[in-house]
Amino acid sequence: MDAQEFVALWKAEKRLVQEELRHGTGTAAQQFRALELDEGQSQKLWEAMDTALTDIFYSLLLGLDGAAAIGGEQHDYQLREEGGSLISGSGEIEAEAFEQFHS
Amino acid sequence: MDAQEFVALWKAEKRLVQEELRHGTGTAAQQFRALELDEGQSQKLWEAMDTALTDIFYSLLLGLDGAAAIGGEQHDYQLREEGGSLISGSGEIEAEAFEQFHS
Repeated sequence: MDAQEFVALWKAEKRLVQEELRHGTGTAAQQFRALELDEGQSQKLWEAMDTALTDIFYSLLLGLDGAAAIGGEQHDYQLREEGGSLISGSGEIEAEAFEQFHS
Repeated sequence: MDAQEFVALWKAEKRLVQEELRHGTGTAAQQFRALELDEGQSQKLWEAMDTALTDIFYSLLLGLDGAAAIGGEQHDYQLREEGGSLISGSGEIEAEAFEQFHS
């Protein structure tokens, strides 16, 4: 797995989270539905959530690549796949995250 | 860094994200404010968001530990700190994530 595939999984996860929060059966989805927003507010809520989720996933990916802080601390983590091959150690995830989340 | 410290940074990050979304100046925060919710709805919104963020951070941590899928695929990643020491390779993050996010 390379950084492109790893980031693509996070992009897919973001979509799964959005779908679950908006249409799912979990506690959070039920709590959002309990707001009983009108149609216009609901559309705005999910636009806001889309922005928030992009920020969250993008920030965590940059954090894992040592390009941003997680919890206020920046560290040069190494992320490897099962076999030990490096997925990212020097900016590969950062570049892909920008490409897939912000372009 | 061990799994306990790594997960603690993610817990701190979750709090920073909540604070930014609710009281910050970023685009997402502005979009949430534009919903113009009344006080009761606003409280419910941030309770829903707390649940959602716990789910998101917990799931991603489990995914990084090979204990859950990210984007529909489960992989036994290895996460190492700068020096190469293993932060998690066999469930350490999963156990800590449960402890810090769900107990």
